[in-house]
Amino acid sequence: MVLIKSHWKDAASRKFASVKAKIPVQWILDPSVIEKAKKQSNLTGPFIEGLLSPIDKEITTFDSIQLIAKIREKTLTAEQVTGAFCKRAAIAHQLNNCLHEIFFEEALDRARELDKHMEKTGCTSGPLHGLPISLKDQFHVKGVETTMGYVGWIGTYEGRKRTGKEMNTNSQMVDDLLSLGAILYCKTSLPQTLLVGETHNNIIGYTLNPVNQRLSCGGSSGGEAALQALRGSTLGVGTDIGGSVRIPAAFCGTFSIKPSVLRFSYKDVANSNPGQTMVPSAIGFMATALSSLKLIMESILSTEPWLRDPEVVPIPWRKEHELTVPHPKLCFAIIDTDNIVTPHPPVARGMKLVRKAIERAGHEVVSWEPPNHSIGTTIHGEILSSDGGANIHDQLKLSGEPIIPEKYDDIGNKRKPPMPILRYQDLALQRKAYRAAYATYWESTKHKTNTGRPVDAVIMPVAPHAAVLNMKYYYYGYTEIVNLLDYSSVCIPVTHADKTIDIFREDYRPLNPTDYKNWEAYDADQYDGAPVGVQIMGHTLQEERTLSIAQITYEALLNHASSKL
Amino acid sequence: MVLIKSHWKDAASRKFASVKAKIPVQWILDPSVIEKAKKQSNLTGPFIEGLLSPIDKEITTFDSIQLIAKIREKTLTAEQVTGAFCKRAAIAHQLNNCLHEIFFEEALDRARELDKHMEKTGCTSGPLHGLPISLKDQFHVKGVETTMGYVGWIGTYEGRKRTGKEMNTNSQMVDDLLSLGAILYCKTSLPQTLLVGETHNNIIGYTLNPVNQRLSCGGSSGGEAALQALRGSTLGVGTDIGGSVRIPAAFCGTFSIKPSVLRFSYKDVANSNPGQTMVPSAIGFMATALSSLKLIMESILSTEPWLRDPEVVPIPWRKEHELTVPHPKLCFAIIDTDNIVTPHPPVARGMKLVRKAIERAGHEVVSWEPPNHSIGTTIHGEILSSDGGANIHDQLKLSGEPIIPEKYDDIGNKRKPPMPILRYQDLALQRKAYRAAYATYWESTKHKTNTGRPVDAVIMPVAPHAAVLNMKYYYYGYTEIVNLLDYSSVCIPVTHADKTIDIFREDYRPLNPTDYKNWEAYDADQYDGAPVGVQIMGHTLQEERTLSIAQITYEALLNHASSKL
Repeated sequence: MVLIKSHWKDAASRKFASVKAKIPVQWILDPSVIEKAKKQSNLTGPFIEGLLSPIDKEITTFDSIQLIAKIREKTLTAEQVTGAFCKRAAIAHQLNNCLHEIFFEEALDRARELDKHMEKTGCTSGPLHGLPISLKDQFHVKGVETTMGYVGWIGTYEGRKRTGKEMNTNSQMVDDLLSLGAILYCKTSLPQTLLVGETHNNIIGYTLNPVNQRLSCGGSSGGEAALQALRGSTLGVGTDIGGSVRIPAAFCGTFSIKPSVLRFSYKDVANSNPGQTMVPSAIGFMATALSSLKLIMESILSTEPWLRDPEVVPIPWRKEHELTVPHPKLCFAIIDTDNIVTPHPPVARGMKLVRKAIERAGHEVVSWEPPNHSIGTTIHGEILSSDGGANIHDQLKLSGEPIIPEKYDDIGNKRKPPMPILRYQDLALQRKAYRAAYATYWESTKHKTNTGRPVDAVIMPVAPHAAVLNMKYYYYGYTEIVNLLDYSSVCIPVTHADKTIDIFREDYRPLNPTDYKNWEAYDADQYDGAPVGVQIMGHTLQEERTLSIAQITYEALLNHASSKL
Repeated sequence: MVLIKSHWKDAASRKFASVKAKIPVQWILDPSVIEKAKKQSNLTGPFIEGLLSPIDKEITTFDSIQLIAKIREKTLTAEQVTGAFCKRAAIAHQLNNCLHEIFFEEALDRARELDKHMEKTGCTSGPLHGLPISLKDQFHVKGVETTMGYVGWIGTYEGRKRTGKEMNTNSQMVDDLLSLGAILYCKTSLPQTLLVGETHNNIIGYTLNPVNQRLSCGGSSGGEAALQALRGSTLGVGTDIGGSVRIPAAFCGTFSIKPSVLRFSYKDVANSNPGQTMVPSAIGFMATALSSLKLIMESILSTEPWLRDPEVVPIPWRKEHELTVPHPKLCFAIIDTDNIVTPHPPVARGMKLVRKAIERAGHEVVSWEPPNHSIGTTIHGEILSSDGGANIHDQLKLSGEPIIPEKYDDIGNKRKPPMPILRYQDLALQRKAYRAAYATYWESTKHKTNTGRPVDAVIMPVAPHAAVLNMKYYYYGYTEIVNLLDYSSVCIPVTHADKTIDIFREDYRPLNPTDYKNWEAYDADQYDGAPVGVQIMGHTLQEERTLSIAQITYEALLNHASSKL
């Protein structure tokens, strides 16, 4: 037992070191810089930019659309762009510990090939030509390992040896991105099990929030959001079964979309308990700009992914569903609190800001009294734990590594009895009934709006806190309800926690023990400067419309903010 | 125990009699006619038409599109049409035992209302204005009971009492059909459990094949196909989890489509073990003409059913996916046999006829070597029996009725242990892998066709027999593979069994025990005259394209047949 334990620690350290060793020596930071970084609250913006050349700084300031345009117009080469992002990602990783895999060399080779292709043909190789795209470490890329945060997966294909697939598999998503001209260069950190709102595993340790290092970057697509906050990537792919692309984006001040499950391909993507298909994990996208989310979704759908993965619904990108200028007057519902766990003051203020901004832009806001969210989140929680942790314990057993402390309460140190199948099949009916009731409620709101339509979108918190203190994530209800309902949801940044105005209310009367724990966890000093994001929830498989409503909301926020200057 | 047993028999007889009692006295057949009918092989065409007035005969000869046109042009009233179909359905039921519920009076009231509406406004009330549509007895209609063939469901809502929903619920499908102007008038028979290819339950007994009374009408949407073969309906709604709209259509010589699961709403439709959502039952449509199938699908989708049922994918009817005249040259694959169970001579001859017809029409036929169907059908069978029969035994226990003999081997007289959930979740992965492998194979055929496209559609038998002798349905592989893959599939009639040419081959060497039993069950004399149908399988959620390919195939068959006259 002791032997095994030392074995997993050795394997983890070797893996961690081997990834770091992929950073070119000229990009290795001086230990004094790392020490200085540890003392910072915020590593983004000026701090990390101080470590870059002016040209690399300039290149990495652009968003995806700008980068692609500059490559197409030959203002920049793919090699220049890739070099700049590899360098910034290398620095981000040294400061923030946000990468699982590094393959800069392969990326630069590919960039040079793409440049040659363009020089030779005068054409790009696709709509993502030359754009560096980062991936959560669930996606398989040929030549690169996938550990998904499990020590026991090192040197294997998803924990299995001698499958012929080790480092020899592309997820369909990877094939499709490459066919569109994208450049893949790194895979980002995630928590062991994937089912945590923080990012911690026994290989790389913990990924902090680069905007406020007292807090977590969120999870499970945490490394992705941290890397983007540090502008080491403009666009990445994650997954979301309970909030995993929305939580880290909100915590790090970036953008993300959780589409409905069937819209994008999960084929050959590693996952936690993939046989639980009742409420499956969705592919999600994360970016430094909303326009990048549209770019990647529209590009991928143009390849007709359903021809290669029959689980994907054959719905192309529907331009006609986007709301274009002049925007119609919309009607929003706003959930300030789900009355189960009350958001901390920074989030409450963020919600008020959004409300003011959209009202000021002439949109309508109506109340929202859907079927009680606690029913939905209870169903979601039961479905996700249906196997009694069997899948997770199988992966832990491969190496003997322990469960991370953030997941210990749920998973323990041995399997629980799996749920009886009749209970599981009954949960399928409960989920269906809850979804139907929610949809019926939503449709009924057409009688109370002034638009003649049901509510266009629902705006709500992503979490009851702006980022989170380690071990203090008590409640996932705001995100997991959206997974249970399989609605599309877009996350946008709104403001930052401010200790001078986001005051802890001593007289707050908690609604229940969870609400008490969450309220007690608020500390204005610790949270100061943390990003606050909200999510905009639209109908199932309505990614085009939901994204354009998020754009309208975000513009309203920007206009509102500038009007107050 | 004896008491309970007599109780269920009494309840069943009372129910059976109460439905018969809904037939107006002037439509009650003389016992001598019923006796004469029993001695016929074929009740369709001349036999049943001999019992109708010329006008009722004429009206019921039209298909759905013609009927709607005649009502719109005011050649016929909705009342005349409804009256004729109610009468023909009443006669069909007396001869063939194909109805579970009769509500002619309500239908005629509604017809008169629709006629008034048209007289008053000059407009129809929708694209299905005045068309009588029949429903499998899984659909709930206000004012009418749903027994689904269970004695214990009499006087309840799906087996439960005092729910407030008894006879007070419309399935979403029912609401939608009514909103489109349809007239509902009867519900059709099905087998207890729904999971049988014959139609038998303890309330109405057995429904024979009206084209050949030595055989079964098929199942589980058996009464629907029998009623349509007798032209007591031109259009109906069924369901299909292992062949249930395709088998009866093929056995009775009518048309049907099994769409992919997510295309149409199952909301508030009774079902067998509805919590098994891994391979769910699909809504299917059955008709006396292919054009009726398009009519009903296009009409329903025009109501945007996904707004009321979030399980439905938001894909409208895509006219642009239909293949229009001049048809392109297509490439078909033909599965004459799956090499597990060899079709009887009439089916083998039917397959050859289709091949000749499509080749003669200039289309290409290539070979088809997909992943072994036995892998897929094994997965399907395990998923469907995952609850160990718990749901079925719960329903039987309500009344004490026994399981029907056709299902005894599967279900027995008590529950089996339900499958462990980890096995069930592993089956989800097996299914996904099989679907992916099948789709990959299909896509790969683009390298062997001359069209530059993958194979356009796959034509295969519906069953290894043309209809079936009681208790001799040994193999569902040809239909259930399509459910496992969730492809769309259209069933068309091809020919009839002919004892003079469809000869039992004594020297046939069976491939395995099931193949042996199936082969032994062929009897040229018994099968003589039985319809032979085939199915045309297209991609997931490609109902528009698959239906138009079925139309092209059917026209090729008609042209081929007429060329031989």
